[in-house]
Amino acid sequence: MKKFDITTPIGIIVGISVLLLAVFSNAGASGLIFFIQLASVLIVGGGLIAGLIINFSFTELKILPKVLRESFRDQDHDLRILIDTFVDLSGKARREGLLALEAGLDEVEDPFIKKGILLAVDGIEPDVIKDIMMAEVVAMEERHRKGRAILEKAAEYAPAWGMIGTLVGLILMLQNLNDPATLGPNMAVALLTTLYGTVLANLVFTPMASKLANKTDEEVFVKQIIIEGVIGVQSGQNPKVLQEKLSAFLSNNDKIIDETMGEAYEA
Amino acid sequence: MKKFDITTPIGIIVGISVLLLAVFSNAGASGLIFFIQLASVLIVGGGLIAGLIINFSFTELKILPKVLRESFRDQDHDLRILIDTFVDLSGKARREGLLALEAGLDEVEDPFIKKGILLAVDGIEPDVIKDIMMAEVVAMEERHRKGRAILEKAAEYAPAWGMIGTLVGLILMLQNLNDPATLGPNMAVALLTTLYGTVLANLVFTPMASKLANKTDEEVFVKQIIIEGVIGVQSGQNPKVLQEKLSAFLSNNDKIIDETMGEAYEA
Amino acid sequence: MKKFDITTPIGIIVGISVLLLAVFSNAGASGLIFFIQLASVLIVGGGLIAGLIINFSFTELKILPKVLRESFRDQDHDLRILIDTFVDLSGKARREGLLALEAGLDEVEDPFIKKGILLAVDGIEPDVIKDIMMAEVVAMEERHRKGRAILEKAAEYAPAWGMIGTLVGLILMLQNLNDPATLGPNMAVALLTTLYGTVLANLVFTPMASKLANKTDEEVFVKQIIIEGVIGVQSGQNPKVLQEKLSAFLSNNDKIIDETMGEAYEA
Amino acid sequence: MKKFDITTPIGIIVGISVLLLAVFSNAGASGLIFFIQLASVLIVGGGLIAGLIINFSFTELKILPKVLRESFRDQDHDLRILIDTFVDLSGKARREGLLALEAGLDEVEDPFIKKGILLAVDGIEPDVIKDIMMAEVVAMEERHRKGRAILEKAAEYAPAWGMIGTLVGLILMLQNLNDPATLGPNMAVALLTTLYGTVLANLVFTPMASKLANKTDEEVFVKQIIIEGVIGVQSGQNPKVLQEKLSAFLSNNDKIIDETMGEAYEA
Amino acid sequence: MKKFDITTPIGIIVGISVLLLAVFSNAGASGLIFFIQLASVLIVGGGLIAGLIINFSFTELKILPKVLRESFRDQDHDLRILIDTFVDLSGKARREGLLALEAGLDEVEDPFIKKGILLAVDGIEPDVIKDIMMAEVVAMEERHRKGRAILEKAAEYAPAWGMIGTLVGLILMLQNLNDPATLGPNMAVALLTTLYGTVLANLVFTPMASKLANKTDEEVFVKQIIIEGVIGVQSGQNPKVLQEKLSAFLSNNDKIIDETMGEAYEA
Repeated sequence: MKKFDITTPIGIIVGISVLLLAVFSNAGASGLIFFIQLASVLIVGGGLIAGLIINFSFTELKILPKVLRESFRDQDHDLRILIDTFVDLSGKARREGLLALEAGLDEVEDPFIKKGILLAVDGIEPDVIKDIMMAEVVAMEERHRKGRAILEKAAEYAPAWGMIGTLVGLILMLQNLNDPATLGPNMAVALLTTLYGTVLANLVFTPMASKLANKTDEEVFVKQIIIEGVIGVQSGQNPKVLQEKLSAFLSNNDKIIDETMGEAYEA
Repeated sequence: MKKFDITTPIGIIVGISVLLLAVFSNAGASGLIFFIQLASVLIVGGGLIAGLIINFSFTELKILPKVLRESFRDQDHDLRILIDTFVDLSGKARREGLLALEAGLDEVEDPFIKKGILLAVDGIEPDVIKDIMMAEVVAMEERHRKGRAILEKAAEYAPAWGMIGTLVGLILMLQNLNDPATLGPNMAVALLTTLYGTVLANLVFTPMASKLANKTDEEVFVKQIIIEGVIGVQSGQNPKVLQEKLSAFLSNNDKIIDETMGEAYEA
Repeated sequence: MKKFDITTPIGIIVGISVLLLAVFSNAGASGLIFFIQLASVLIVGGGLIAGLIINFSFTELKILPKVLRESFRDQDHDLRILIDTFVDLSGKARREGLLALEAGLDEVEDPFIKKGILLAVDGIEPDVIKDIMMAEVVAMEERHRKGRAILEKAAEYAPAWGMIGTLVGLILMLQNLNDPATLGPNMAVALLTTLYGTVLANLVFTPMASKLANKTDEEVFVKQIIIEGVIGVQSGQNPKVLQEKLSAFLSNNDKIIDETMGEAYEA
Repeated sequence: MKKFDITTPIGIIVGISVLLLAVFSNAGASGLIFFIQLASVLIVGGGLIAGLIINFSFTELKILPKVLRESFRDQDHDLRILIDTFVDLSGKARREGLLALEAGLDEVEDPFIKKGILLAVDGIEPDVIKDIMMAEVVAMEERHRKGRAILEKAAEYAPAWGMIGTLVGLILMLQNLNDPATLGPNMAVALLTTLYGTVLANLVFTPMASKLANKTDEEVFVKQIIIEGVIGVQSGQNPKVLQEKLSAFLSNNDKIIDETMGEAYEA
Repeated sequence: MKKFDITTPIGIIVGISVLLLAVFSNAGASGLIFFIQLASVLIVGGGLIAGLIINFSFTELKILPKVLRESFRDQDHDLRILIDTFVDLSGKARREGLLALEAGLDEVEDPFIKKGILLAVDGIEPDVIKDIMMAEVVAMEERHRKGRAILEKAAEYAPAWGMIGTLVGLILMLQNLNDPATLGPNMAVALLTTLYGTVLANLVFTPMASKLANKTDEEVFVKQIIIEGVIGVQSGQNPKVLQEKLSAFLSNNDKIIDETMGEAYEA
């Protein structure tokens, strides 16, 4: 149900290409090589890691790779298929009883829907089902928030360590002005860390944290539809009524973005 | 009902003219040409696009052109005509019954009024009509907020990429100081990206995002009057009473801005 | 009831005098002339206007002159006189009846008090009077907030355009370094726009927006006393009780600032 | 009950000593003299005053000296003595009746306790006493907030005017580069205003505003204990119960900071 | 129950090593020595201390060492052991009565659990127990917030005093430009304070304040489980039900971070 989200790598490739092109068109391949200085990478990367280690516990930092992987993935939310699933389940439940749903659960891929249907089959009350499922949604939001916090702190520390690197470079340069010929290149190296920090913050950390926030919002929205669907199936709602009810969600979000947006503005 | 909003293009033209004049009066036409450097445009534009691609999904970015178009349009809200419409509808509904309104709906241009009247004609209860129409208003606010978010993020990324471009230019320049004659022009080129980023943020993205927020507020205000009007028409309110009621809205907003403002201050 | 608020012009004159003195003592009259460059005024002023035109609609911008006039005025709120007015009205109402108040309304200058008394004389219920008068107070707050928003945005755009002007000046200067003698003066001119933008923001726009916010708070406070007074007069409250009640407001605000402040700190 | 708060002057003396020492160790007494330039003092001080005059009304500015004096004073809140006072009052009230308290009021120094006891003796209901005393606390908070606002605005305007002074100095210097020997000293003078503004903001205005906020919190806390004490005395509460009740406050604040803090962390 | 939190010192060591390595690889051991200047340490450290002394009272500052020690410690919260403790206590209470718990309290290390069980044994009502224990949690949060405030203010003052030190250095340098050979080293020394301030803020104060905030959140979470456990034990809840109930907390936090996180993202 998840596919590779091509926009994050495309964005990063576009951003880096723009930088490479700008350098290459001015200074050729040798210019490009100059822009990669191990010492500068070390100072920004090392300082950033140091800041994050102090800021977060190891338990929290272990989330980071999963968070990064997440921002390269796109959940394929076809809400119409989702609604059809619940319409089918609702029809089956009315024809054959709630217990009959357990047999067909293997076809349902989404573990959140599965859990909900199992709770419904177990005869747990709607309010309790809603509480249990919402608790999971809230826990997911909290988890995503913690993961995002690492990227947001990284966006804060990266430019700071870029500036620290530049200060170190400038101090070293100024301390020893004997050879004026080295003045320019030394200052160029000093400025590299500021460049690294600024690019990391504005091309990687800030946009990724922002995209993760958008994705969390969307995920919460989908999970709320699922909860409504499960409650509807359990309470033996008429499939048509359930479809209408769930489509109301649709019209306030996906459908609108795709089609109604323009009309809405033209209206 | 929408007309071209002349203030946005006027503002942009004034801003750019001021810049061109300042350059032209100092350095003539050749100076002007210097201020347009393809590489600098590429680095700010490319970086900005890269950041936005990572930050938003394609579904969200597809909203952008509509959002931009919106900030060049002005909805012609003549609230007096709007109130008259409801007074007429209310009179007709009392004389000929609610069903008679359906026949005259072709004359009503605004789709939001149409939808409301159709719901009223269908005999749906006032509370439900209010819920349905408010849900649409909330969805509109959320949609506008998402579109505005793109402009707000652009206002954040543009100066950052301007600074990145300047850093790249400075590093290239410092790395190779052999020819002192090129020092000045090279640094001038390096500063161009900072200029582009700052102008984009302060002339285009920030003011546009701000204007869209004001327009959303106004649109929500108008739609609230329409909802009150529809409810009034359905409940068979006396046209005079409805007029008084809707004019109360008017006095707290439009009328006041135009006329009462001065008195209020003088009071 | 309004008088010229001398503090705003005094502050602006003090600020500008300080600047002029600093320049004059260093560089004489010729130095002063150098600080007024038409091109620099044009770029900051033009850019600022361009940003504001895009940011606000014409309807909103038309409020600006009234807002500026307002920050040069001071409402003379003698709360003791205000309270005496209500004590008199209350006594008269108890002696001669509410209708008798209409005759003496010509002596009441404040239109807000007039409106309140007329509503009371018309026999409208206290709750409704309070709602109507509070609606007017809320509308006033909203109107002031909109007017203040223009000054706040101006305080944001002015330094940005100052920096844009400096960037343009620096780029022009660096582009043509042939004549080293012009280097200094050219850079001096470039820095002028940053100076203009910073002075405008920190001497004019930010303090004025801040003072308007304080004035709005004070006006809301006075109008709330008036509302309490009108309700008290209408409900035939004993003049002494009304005086006590309204003086409670006084002690929490004006009286305290003047006299109790010190004691309160010393206590 | 108030004593001189030695930390504020100590802090300011430490900060200034550090600066003087740094200058003196580098440049001797003559260097120190250079750091006091009348023109620079004038531009930062004058601009700051100009900004504050526009920002606040005279009524508000008159609070400033009291606010400044306040941050050099420390209220000696011995909460145990305070609680003992109420335990004594409570015992006396139970033995001899509420009216007997009036005789011993001369020994009570705190006017807030006095006022509360007088209200209790007058037989006013507990809810009303609480309302009246809380109104005074809220008024005190509001007054302190207004006074603090002046310091907070000063912390905002001081560095801005420091920068304005430096810009003026740089422009004057660049305008006339004839004598290279004066270049350094002129630029040094230009930078002085930025130094003044930054030191004022970070050594004086920001820490003082912050300390006043802490003091207000503490004062509100003490006054809340007094209100609970007065209510307890009036309602004839058992002295032991009253002591337990008031000590609960103590344990959540003072006691904890002094003793439990460490344990709490070690726990 | 507390162990040494190795991540804070590791982070600080990593950060400082990165800086030392960057300097050493460029300038050798002599370069390293240059980076430690007593005067620069004095100005940043002294100014920082001066700001904090003015900003906080001595009572508040005395918390600092405990706060610093806290960020080098890690509370070993094995929630499964915690839950087992309550399951055991609950079983014992059902078998032998609440009073029997008092005997085994010596084995319980955590003073917060001890206090809760003692309150339960004393027969105090569940609501009152919850109030008392929550009051302690709120007091702990408030105490941690105050301690964190010192670090947060330090993160604000450190770079400011770094800049002040650099300004003083620059002014001294510019004032006396006679010997061009000393220009570079003098400016290098001037920049050192900015480096110190930035490193202190971004390597020490900001990450530590942020980690303390995370730790407070975690501690509050653990204490809430303990409160639920104590209430469960007192009300004679079935040990199995209590285990289920407390594990619900677990699944929303610890368990999820360790195991479910990945699945949740893959789901």
